Amino acid sequence: MHSFQELTVQFGEHFNREHFPERPKRLYESVTHILKIGGKRIRPVLSIMGNELFDNIHPDVFQVGIAVEMFHNFTLVHDDIMDKAPLRRNHPTVHTLYGESTAILAGDVMLINVYDYLNRVQPHYKQKLISAFNKAAREVCEGQQIDMDFEEMEPEQVHYNDYVNMIALKTSVLLAASLQMGAIIGGGSEYNQQHIYEFGKNIGIAFQIQDDYLDAFGDPEKFGKQQGGDILVNKKTFLLLKALEMCNPAQRTRLKELLSSNPDDKVAQVLQLFHDCKVDEWAEKEKDRFQQIAFEHLESIAVLSARKKPLMELAGYLLKREH
Amino acid sequence: MHSFQELTVQFGEHFNREHFPERPKRLYESVTHILKIGGKRIRPVLSIMGNELFDNIHPDVFQVGIAVEMFHNFTLVHDDIMDKAPLRRNHPTVHTLYGESTAILAGDVMLINVYDYLNRVQPHYKQKLISAFNKAAREVCEGQQIDMDFEEMEPEQVHYNDYVNMIALKTSVLLAASLQMGAIIGGGSEYNQQHIYEFGKNIGIAFQIQDDYLDAFGDPEKFGKQQGGDILVNKKTFLLLKALEMCNPAQRTRLKELLSSNPDDKVAQVLQLFHDCKVDEWAEKEKDRFQQIAFEHLESIAVLSARKKPLMELAGYLLKREH
Repeated sequence: MHSFQELTVQFGEHFNREHFPERPKRLYESVTHILKIGGKRIRPVLSIMGNELFDNIHPDVFQVGIAVEMFHNFTLVHDDIMDKAPLRRNHPTVHTLYGESTAILAGDVMLINVYDYLNRVQPHYKQKLISAFNKAAREVCEGQQIDMDFEEMEPEQVHYNDYVNMIALKTSVLLAASLQMGAIIGGGSEYNQQHIYEFGKNIGIAFQIQDDYLDAFGDPEKFGKQQGGDILVNKKTFLLLKALEMCNPAQRTRLKELLSSNPDDKVAQVLQLFHDCKVDEWAEKEKDRFQQIAFEHLESIAVLSARKKPLMELAGYLLKREH
Repeated sequence: MHSFQELTVQFGEHFNREHFPERPKRLYESVTHILKIGGKRIRPVLSIMGNELFDNIHPDVFQVGIAVEMFHNFTLVHDDIMDKAPLRRNHPTVHTLYGESTAILAGDVMLINVYDYLNRVQPHYKQKLISAFNKAAREVCEGQQIDMDFEEMEPEQVHYNDYVNMIALKTSVLLAASLQMGAIIGGGSEYNQQHIYEFGKNIGIAFQIQDDYLDAFGDPEKFGKQQGGDILVNKKTFLLLKALEMCNPAQRTRLKELLSSNPDDKVAQVLQLFHDCKVDEWAEKEKDRFQQIAFEHLESIAVLSARKKPLMELAGYLLKREH
C-alpha cells in the first residue's frame, strides 16, 4: 500500500516525458505546454489506488493513469477555448499562446493519444476498461454542454438537482471512472467496482461544494484566490442556487437585484445574504452528506479495511483543504 | 464480392440510425446534423472492400466502418470551425448553427464514440486495429496543422514534396487505413496490409490532384462548383505550387502579381499562365503517376485478381469523375 505522495512520485516517473513527436512543431509544442504546467495528477493516482485496493500494482495501471491524465488535460484545453479563459494554473492557456485552431487540434490529438495508452493494456480487460472510460468521457462532454446551457438561463431557472447532476458529470465521473479502471486492473468484482465508482463520484461532488464554499467564505490567504470571485461574475454555484431556494421573498428580491448590478461591496452584501439565509451552514452539511455517502460506499467494498486507508487519507486531504 | 454501390447500401443499413442519446439536446442535435447531411461514405466502403479482398464480410467490419465514417465527420466539424466555413455539403456548418463551443464538443463526443465502435471488435485483432486507426487519426491532425502552417507562408516557400506529404496526411492516410483495417479483419498478412495501405494512400493523392485540376480546368456544369474557386482565394494547390516551379521568370512575376491583386479576369489570366507553363499537362501526368503507383501496390497483393475487381472499379470511378 502506498500513500498519495508516494504514488504521485511513481506516476510522475511514467508521465513526465515526451508523449509526442517533435513535428509539426506548433501542434506538439502546444500539447507539451499544457502537460508541463502541472496539476495534482489526482486522477492517475486514483487509478493506482483503485488497483492497490484489490491487488499489487500492475504495470497496466500506469498506462491507464497516463490515459486519464491526458484526457483531463485535453478537457482543460478545449474547455478553456469555450470559456475564453486567458489563464490556467497561472500560465497563458493554449489558445492564448497558439491560437484557437491549434488549440482545437491539440485537444484532438491528445484525445486520440489517450487511446494509444488504453490500447496497451492486456486484452482480457481491455474491452471493459475502454467501455468504463468512454462512458465517463462522454459524460464529461455532456456535463460541459449542460453547464453551457445553464449559463444562458437565469439562476432561479436552474434546479438544484440538475445542477448536482451537471457537476457530477463535468467533474466527478472521471474521478469515479479512474478509480473503477484501477479496480478492473486489480481484479475487483463488478460489485466492488460499483462501490468504488460511487465513492469517487460522491467525493467529487463534496469537493465541488467545498470549492464553492471556500471561494465565498474561505480565507483568501490560504485559498490563494480572490474572495468572492464566483460572486463577482454571477457564477452559478451550489451556494447561489441554494440561497435562492432557501431565502425569504425579500432576501430573494435583494439577491436578484445584486445579481443584476455591480456595487463596490457586492461580495460583502451577497455573503451577508448567504449568511442570513444560512446557506453557509447548509453547504457544510451538504458536503458532509456527500462525504458520508462516499464513505458508506467505501465501507461496502469487500476488502480488508487496511487496504482502504490510502483512499480514506486522500479523501480526508481533499475535503479538509484550506488552500 | 460486392460493388461499391451494393456496399454503400449495406453500410447505410448499419449507419443510418441514431448513434447518440437525446440529451443534452443541443449537443446531440448538432452531432445528428452533420451525420444526416450525407456524404459518399467512401471510407467505410473501403474498409468492407479491404475485408472482402481476403475473406467474406465479417460483421466486425461494419463496426470499423461506422468508426471511420464517424471519425471523418468529426474532422469535418472541427475543420469547419478552423476554416470558418459557413457551408458544408450545401448545409450550414455545425458551428454556424450551434455555435463554436457546441461544435467543439460535438466533435469531441464523436471522436470518443469512434472508440466505442472500435471497442466492439473481436479481441484478437483489436490491438492492431486501434493501432492502425490511431496512427492515421494522429496523422490527419498533423496534416491539418501543416496545412494551417502553409497558409501563413508565401506559395513559393512551400516545397512541392512537403505539399504532397501534407495532402497525404490530411486526406489520404485515412483512406489507406480504412482499407488496411478491413484487411486486418479479413486476415490479410502484414505484407498485404502494407500494399493495400499504399494503394489507398496513392489513390488519395491522385484524387486530390484531380480535384485541384477540375477546380481549375473542369467543366463547371459537370463539376458543380464555380470554375477557379481555388484561384480566386489564392488557395495553395498542386497546380499553383507546381506552376511557380515550372514557369519562367517573367511568368512567375506575373503570377505573383495576380496573387496579390484581384482583377476581374483573375481566373482567366491565371488559367492562361497555368496553360502557358504546361502545368495542366503536368497535372494529368502526375495524377496518372500516383494512380500507377497505387495499381502496382494493388497488383502486389497476393490474392486472386478477381478479388481486386471492386477496388479497381472504385478507383476508376473516383479518378475519372467529371462531376
